[in-house]
Amino acid sequence: MKAVVLFSGGLDSTVLTYHLLHENAELKLLSIDYGQRHQKELSASTQIAVSLGLPHTILKLPMLAELLGGSALTDTSISLPEGHYAEESMKATVVPNRNMILLSLAAGHAISLQFNTVAYAAHAGDHTIYPDCRPEFADALDRTLKLADWSEITLHRPFVKWSKEDLVRRGKELAVPFEKTWSCYAGGEFHCGKCGTCVERKEAFELVGLLDPTEYKE
Amino acid sequence: MKAVVLFSGGLDSTVLTYHLLHENAELKLLSIDYGQRHQKELSASTQIAVSLGLPHTILKLPMLAELLGGSALTDTSISLPEGHYAEESMKATVVPNRNMILLSLAAGHAISLQFNTVAYAAHAGDHTIYPDCRPEFADALDRTLKLADWSEITLHRPFVKWSKEDLVRRGKELAVPFEKTWSCYAGGEFHCGKCGTCVERKEAFELVGLLDPTEYKE
Repeated sequence: MKAVVLFSGGLDSTVLTYHLLHENAELKLLSIDYGQRHQKELSASTQIAVSLGLPHTILKLPMLAELLGGSALTDTSISLPEGHYAEESMKATVVPNRNMILLSLAAGHAISLQFNTVAYAAHAGDHTIYPDCRPEFADALDRTLKLADWSEITLHRPFVKWSKEDLVRRGKELAVPFEKTWSCYAGGEFHCGKCGTCVERKEAFELVGLLDPTEYKE
Repeated sequence: MKAVVLFSGGLDSTVLTYHLLHENAELKLLSIDYGQRHQKELSASTQIAVSLGLPHTILKLPMLAELLGGSALTDTSISLPEGHYAEESMKATVVPNRNMILLSLAAGHAISLQFNTVAYAAHAGDHTIYPDCRPEFADALDRTLKLADWSEITLHRPFVKWSKEDLVRRGKELAVPFEKTWSCYAGGEFHCGKCGTCVERKEAFELVGLLDPTEYKE
């Protein structure tokens, strides 16, 4: 497999990268600066890519936040909800059509590199609020990618039915340096510990019974 | 219908815009600067949008050409093929996964505006060389867009089985100002008259028996 990995520098896509390296895939990491308030994930992505010696590109799309206005992730005038992912209020963190945009860019890059795969780390915990993390979305996009070029591109999404707990367990097996990954949406110096992704992250380490190496604000 | 139209300022998307206005659709025009050498189409898009009094955004994605390297449309070190679209050499003008990237951006914008439709002007003449103009690609993408958000987005592609001749005929009925549209890929001051899109444009006017108002270089 030669895959472009949609790589945010977060826990999920870092476990995915280690998981694919374990399967001897040839990888190119792609991160996208879409104006997210948590720019810190981009520094995390660089640090992890360098430590693995993998080729990595950060694509800057500064106008995207304006085009896709209305999400708390890109518009700092909208307050970031705190609490558990499953809550209705978390829908404020949806960036319209984000995954299709990012995956289609990754697919264009894969075609250009003559790679055959695009990989992303959507997992079951995302489905409640993010429509574009659902297995049926991933299946439909896979069928579309197979027709987007003269040669077939496959959308690899091995975690689409896994829980966050499963991801932490797999990361533990692969000795993923969790302390280098960045999840928090709030954009501070440390993980806030209160936003949806922080709550889910903490909970997953607890469920696995693994010491959480994350530095939380409080 | 409330539609974001993928609008290049070319003949096809201009006829599409007039066609949808005729059907009383509410429209937002979206043009994308992906580093194409024929930047003149972007000025054409502005001129036409202003003359119609329609809202219009040009999204600048300057890093895209680098990410999707290898097309004669974005890389001036690759020579632009001349001749008829149907020829194998024209494949040099394919920009990897261009349509999925542009349509997914348009869909994100549509969701953000609470519109229900994305429209694009792919037509049958494109299919020979552009995989992402095929009806089966458009059908698959339509199914994917319906799952990309909690509310359904439809991909409207009324011309997907029409010839360029059909488009010119429809444009004639709707009094489209063809002289304002820009097709040529070569990036000069006038249409070159020799690249695939110029050849197809000239041929379509001849087949319809309509005087071609385009200023060609020779």
